[in-house]
Amino acid sequence: MTNFDSKEPIKLTHKIDIPLDVWEENISEYIENYNAITKGTGKLFIFAGDQKIEHLNNDFKGEGISIEDSNPEHLFKIAKYGKIGAFATQFGLLCRYGRDYPSIDYIVKLNSKTNLVESCQKDPLSTLLIDISDVIEFKKRTGLNIRGVGYTLYLGSEFESEMLSKAGRIIHEAHKNGLIAVIWIYPRGKAVRNEKEPKIIAGATGVGACIGADFVKVNYPQSKEPEIDFKDAIASAGRTKVICAGGSSKKPEKFLKILSEQINISGASGCATGRNIHQKSLLDAVALTYAINEIVYNNNTIDDALEFLKPELKEKIRDEILLKQYESEKIK
Amino acid sequence: MTNFDSKEPIKLTHKIDIPLDVWEENISEYIENYNAITKGTGKLFIFAGDQKIEHLNNDFKGEGISIEDSNPEHLFKIAKYGKIGAFATQFGLLCRYGRDYPSIDYIVKLNSKTNLVESCQKDPLSTLLIDISDVIEFKKRTGLNIRGVGYTLYLGSEFESEMLSKAGRIIHEAHKNGLIAVIWIYPRGKAVRNEKEPKIIAGATGVGACIGADFVKVNYPQSKEPEIDFKDAIASAGRTKVICAGGSSKKPEKFLKILSEQINISGASGCATGRNIHQKSLLDAVALTYAINEIVYNNNTIDDALEFLKPELKEKIRDEILLKQYESEKIK
Amino acid sequence: MTNFDSKEPIKLTHKIDIPLDVWEENISEYIENYNAITKGTGKLFIFAGDQKIEHLNNDFKGEGISIEDSNPEHLFKIAKYGKIGAFATQFGLLCRYGRDYPSIDYIVKLNSKTNLVESCQKDPLSTLLIDISDVIEFKKRTGLNIRGVGYTLYLGSEFESEMLSKAGRIIHEAHKNGLIAVIWIYPRGKAVRNEKEPKIIAGATGVGACIGADFVKVNYPQSKEPEIDFKDAIASAGRTKVICAGGSSKKPEKFLKILSEQINISGASGCATGRNIHQKSLLDAVALTYAINEIVYNNNTIDDALEFLKPELKEKIRDEILLKQYESEKIK
Amino acid sequence: MTNFDSKEPIKLTHKIDIPLDVWEENISEYIENYNAITKGTGKLFIFAGDQKIEHLNNDFKGEGISIEDSNPEHLFKIAKYGKIGAFATQFGLLCRYGRDYPSIDYIVKLNSKTNLVESCQKDPLSTLLIDISDVIEFKKRTGLNIRGVGYTLYLGSEFESEMLSKAGRIIHEAHKNGLIAVIWIYPRGKAVRNEKEPKIIAGATGVGACIGADFVKVNYPQSKEPEIDFKDAIASAGRTKVICAGGSSKKPEKFLKILSEQINISGASGCATGRNIHQKSLLDAVALTYAINEIVYNNNTIDDALEFLKPELKEKIRDEILLKQYESEKIK
Amino acid sequence: MTNFDSKEPIKLTHKIDIPLDVWEENISEYIENYNAITKGTGKLFIFAGDQKIEHLNNDFKGEGISIEDSNPEHLFKIAKYGKIGAFATQFGLLCRYGRDYPSIDYIVKLNSKTNLVESCQKDPLSTLLIDISDVIEFKKRTGLNIRGVGYTLYLGSEFESEMLSKAGRIIHEAHKNGLIAVIWIYPRGKAVRNEKEPKIIAGATGVGACIGADFVKVNYPQSKEPEIDFKDAIASAGRTKVICAGGSSKKPEKFLKILSEQINISGASGCATGRNIHQKSLLDAVALTYAINEIVYNNNTIDDALEFLKPELKEKIRDEILLKQYESEKIK
Repeated sequence: MTNFDSKEPIKLTHKIDIPLDVWEENISEYIENYNAITKGTGKLFIFAGDQKIEHLNNDFKGEGISIEDSNPEHLFKIAKYGKIGAFATQFGLLCRYGRDYPSIDYIVKLNSKTNLVESCQKDPLSTLLIDISDVIEFKKRTGLNIRGVGYTLYLGSEFESEMLSKAGRIIHEAHKNGLIAVIWIYPRGKAVRNEKEPKIIAGATGVGACIGADFVKVNYPQSKEPEIDFKDAIASAGRTKVICAGGSSKKPEKFLKILSEQINISGASGCATGRNIHQKSLLDAVALTYAINEIVYNNNTIDDALEFLKPELKEKIRDEILLKQYESEKIK
Repeated sequence: MTNFDSKEPIKLTHKIDIPLDVWEENISEYIENYNAITKGTGKLFIFAGDQKIEHLNNDFKGEGISIEDSNPEHLFKIAKYGKIGAFATQFGLLCRYGRDYPSIDYIVKLNSKTNLVESCQKDPLSTLLIDISDVIEFKKRTGLNIRGVGYTLYLGSEFESEMLSKAGRIIHEAHKNGLIAVIWIYPRGKAVRNEKEPKIIAGATGVGACIGADFVKVNYPQSKEPEIDFKDAIASAGRTKVICAGGSSKKPEKFLKILSEQINISGASGCATGRNIHQKSLLDAVALTYAINEIVYNNNTIDDALEFLKPELKEKIRDEILLKQYESEKIK
Repeated sequence: MTNFDSKEPIKLTHKIDIPLDVWEENISEYIENYNAITKGTGKLFIFAGDQKIEHLNNDFKGEGISIEDSNPEHLFKIAKYGKIGAFATQFGLLCRYGRDYPSIDYIVKLNSKTNLVESCQKDPLSTLLIDISDVIEFKKRTGLNIRGVGYTLYLGSEFESEMLSKAGRIIHEAHKNGLIAVIWIYPRGKAVRNEKEPKIIAGATGVGACIGADFVKVNYPQSKEPEIDFKDAIASAGRTKVICAGGSSKKPEKFLKILSEQINISGASGCATGRNIHQKSLLDAVALTYAINEIVYNNNTIDDALEFLKPELKEKIRDEILLKQYESEKIK
Repeated sequence: MTNFDSKEPIKLTHKIDIPLDVWEENISEYIENYNAITKGTGKLFIFAGDQKIEHLNNDFKGEGISIEDSNPEHLFKIAKYGKIGAFATQFGLLCRYGRDYPSIDYIVKLNSKTNLVESCQKDPLSTLLIDISDVIEFKKRTGLNIRGVGYTLYLGSEFESEMLSKAGRIIHEAHKNGLIAVIWIYPRGKAVRNEKEPKIIAGATGVGACIGADFVKVNYPQSKEPEIDFKDAIASAGRTKVICAGGSSKKPEKFLKILSEQINISGASGCATGRNIHQKSLLDAVALTYAINEIVYNNNTIDDALEFLKPELKEKIRDEILLKQYESEKIK
Repeated sequence: MTNFDSKEPIKLTHKIDIPLDVWEENISEYIENYNAITKGTGKLFIFAGDQKIEHLNNDFKGEGISIEDSNPEHLFKIAKYGKIGAFATQFGLLCRYGRDYPSIDYIVKLNSKTNLVESCQKDPLSTLLIDISDVIEFKKRTGLNIRGVGYTLYLGSEFESEMLSKAGRIIHEAHKNGLIAVIWIYPRGKAVRNEKEPKIIAGATGVGACIGADFVKVNYPQSKEPEIDFKDAIASAGRTKVICAGGSSKKPEKFLKILSEQINISGASGCATGRNIHQKSLLDAVALTYAINEIVYNNNTIDDALEFLKPELKEKIRDEILLKQYESEKIK
């Protein structure tokens, strides 16, 4: 059941719906990128690491947060030693650490904003930190495993039109060049009373489909039976796949239970998780990625997943990390 | 009277007023596009499928809505098996499904907004999800039957100037390249007390003419004798043709009666209908397109049209759908 | 006195002050355009037909308005059969009818806005419906007699800076390419208490001079002795010529009397008239253009002009229109 | 002492600090332009003629204003017959009159706004009427003596950032091409309580230095000892030279006394004067330019300057104007 | 201990983390620039001279400020004779004085705003005075020692999105071309209650890391134990280095004590100091730069640093300045 060889050969079990705007000459790159981050399953586990702008330092330092998390390199270590589909982070951070972490599959999160200005003062607007054309040139120059781009879209903001317009073009630009487009869609702003209402989440995923996203990341609905209500959101997205935000830190058991329901009951295609992972120590974080990997990619049970969090397997994970570190050093 | 061969050869009964800004080298493409969607009659029946952004998921899931409608592919199936002039939808959705639905004649709806922010909070502004130049390149690359582009313009919005400016340029760009330009014009915003007042509708169609639209889609006036008042709107548009929005779902009889009045009394050139069609099951939806086709393109009576909604003919339509599905499978 | 040959050879009685920014290679075109619309006199009678956006359908349908005016083609017929200097209308309308009306001298009105949003809600802003570079390319492609471009500038609006900036560049672009630049200048917005105050009108024409306009169209001052006060506006403009807006419909006698005073007392260089003409039937409208022509271009008296509105001459005009129609048909 | 040959050969008494961003190939042009307007002294007397937009017609028509001033050509006549360093006016006006006034050294005032909207309604924003690249092309095409460009910057306006950004680029663009950059800096807007406070004026000139202006035009401080306080403003500007606005019309004696103090006590490098000059008749205006010339360029006393305003010398100036007019006619 | 040869050969004690977006062909230039301003230590002492726009003339004239500071050249003299890492100033000032001060290592501060409009009126927005592409061309043309660019970013401003977007691109553009990117990050605006709160400072440095800055300049936290709290800010920045603003003038002993704590306790990588230096006479200012140099670059104690401020060593510094001045003159 458990597999400690993290670069296991990809079994292509999933037929990819290649968007029609992937130019002929880049279809093979699109497929390669798609398979790299979905491990051939069509599912996706994003390790989300864009919160240093979105939430400032509050997610990285404080009670219950491992001291290791205060260093941004912690994110890259987890991404390297963990079992994830892709690591999403900002371009600048990538430039600072990418040279030392070339094995990671990256999604460049193109836009970000801080949480200092609240919606009651001004509706949210998140602008590009870098152009996608820069990212494409960068990928060509450096050979880094950039598999796709990410963009946050606030529906219902007074600036929706500006972001919707950017999102549409970025997705098209990504596709033309063989990259995967992941859109974080959050209904937010003075007009949005409850951003986790099931109906509005299903609206958000539908918008993701209409602008051509490959994956849409949304919040899990807040309702009595979210796993049922979430089905609407997944239906509404059609061929665009829906992955679920991880939200604030929870106990691993609870986190994995919800994740399993999202995938196995609602039909979600994976998750994008940040805080639940990086606020732990490297070992705990990596162990959790093994557990998530089990549910997202290997289609296994919560119990299977929880095995990785127990002392025995954790010990093995520790050994594996050490072995990899040793090999990395050797190369240098 | 009824004709089940949906790709009947086009009878060119209508002389086209080719706009002077269709470049010489693209006149034949303009004519081809025009005839394809008007079936040689100068009339146009658009199956409108842009509501997943405009109204979020509310038009696709709920009481009285077929469960089939919760999947965006439902729209493409209707467009494929139904008898329509053109299917209008967003570029992203087109990219997701176009490969499997190459026989449809498409109009790319270039801009969209959600309905989350209401006019009392901020006047409406709808921005481009994609540039028309991208659409033109896309058409060349993929060979998809993109016949034209659509754009929504909110007259009376505080952002009117921004949208009016874009509309003018898009129409010109479309014409230069041989594409048909359809403008959805809705007077809306804090300045507009009654957006369905006959006078303001006639103003809207006149604006459509001044910016050079081929077709203007407006709401049907709200008045005692809308079919009489609507004549003004059609006169005001001159050589620009006016088609009418379908609005929320109505009983087919009522819907077809109004449509017939719009065309035969007011002089409208067709309709753009969405919810009335896609909220039904595939069979019912397709049957309704047959009925609409009868009125818009074949110049027949409401009674002729209603035949298609009766069990006997519906049975034939079901057979035809099945046959087409079988043929599609064979090709694959 | 009366001359029924509408294409009389141009007598060059006016020395043109060619702006220094007309590029050498386009000076002859500038002169040709200038002479075409001023008929060699340096005076200009614009038949203004941009109200379908500016005033929506209210100027074209209603009490006291000829039913013929409800069709936008009415404008083109008047422009064809009447004696005018130039017909100013939007690019889109031009594209719809230009092919059938190639003999008209056109001024393309580049920007427009509706009157739905009032200044008390938001200061006026009128944006370009088309770029001047598009108009220039269009002229080259089609050979249409586009003699110049028009632009509306609202001084005193909170968006003045945006429009002033555009106006300056458009004039320069027009000149470089040999086109005539006509600027409609209306002081308007919350800051403007009385937009027809003599002082502010004289300010407006001075601004027109500073941005290099060939002709400035302003409203006639509202004062006890407007014909005296208007002299200031004409002096202030220097070599930039001033023409006067026609305003709402008046009795022909009154209209011609004011026009004559503007030209012969104040020193105006002509007029830009819309509603006073097009709200009439074709015959009455054409007859009025003959009368205006008499005053603007032939330097004749009001009594001379009024002759054209009497039954006898009107009969001749009717014959002339019929003859022209017959000839147009023959060519087809 | 008095010299009636207005094109006296330039004595180069001033070493020019050539900005480092004047490209090598344009250094000689920069020097030529600099010497032309400073007459080799490093001082500058600008005849400012941009008020037709800034103050509309109020500066040109009214009590105490010569009737000659109501015609914009008056400005060009003064610039031609007077002894000035440069005439600053808008591009459009230049295009209208430049052909007849080729001997004038021009500074093109690139931006302007009217005074209709007051700061209490909306903070000031003045945008470009023409791009500097257009001016450069224009100069090459026409050979007109365009020596530099002018730009107005409102510090403390809510739109400061937009104008500051433009100013920096315009100065750089001017320098690269060998043109002189003169920046009018006025602290203005709701945030500015007293725009003539000595401290704020010194702040303004310092900003001029930081953006690289060659000359900064500011208002004279309002204080008990402005000639002393103004020293700070001149020190603050470092190698950027400071010239003083003339303000509203004053008696010549008073005007010249203040000017002399500005230059000889405060250390100003000249003046930019408009209304004090052009509101006079041509003869009086030209005589005043002779007087100003005496103080700015010839380093003479107020008494020397005042000689030019006395009947005897005025008679000589009148003769000189007549002679020049005669010669101009002869050339034609 | 003390070394009076200011151009001592650089000892490369620091391994540089070259950002991955420095293009291959410019890596050597990046290293050269990095070593030039960090003197091979990885630490940086910026002499900040951008306050003439930021604070207008208030920092340069007034009680307790040396009269020498009223002339902007004072800044260049200090930068030339002092021991600093780099002198940061605006492009315009650089163009005015750079020719005479070619030995200085410059950082071009790209954006600036005045302090006239306060946050309570409008949130801060600082725009570019020049494009980075202009700076790069300028460097190539002039050969000036431009080592990097600076940009101020106001987090928490309602215009954060505009500045964050610019910052990201500027850093990338700088890196691509081998330049060092220094970002001044100040949380400021109506949403920011306490801009010196330790948490928010740590947030700011983290943002600097995410956008890829080489150095982030922030304010020192205000708290009971700022030197402890500041550690979080330095950790949060990861491989992006943090330097501390100098703030308003303090007694040298106090200033150096804080600086030493910032570096030796908190782990800061240097400082950016302006007013503390330039408000002194040239000799005092230069002496202080020697003292700062001692702490930042030579890793010495406060006592070592204070030696430079005592009469004996000051005398030596005076001699050294005089010698350099003599040599500069000789070259001319």
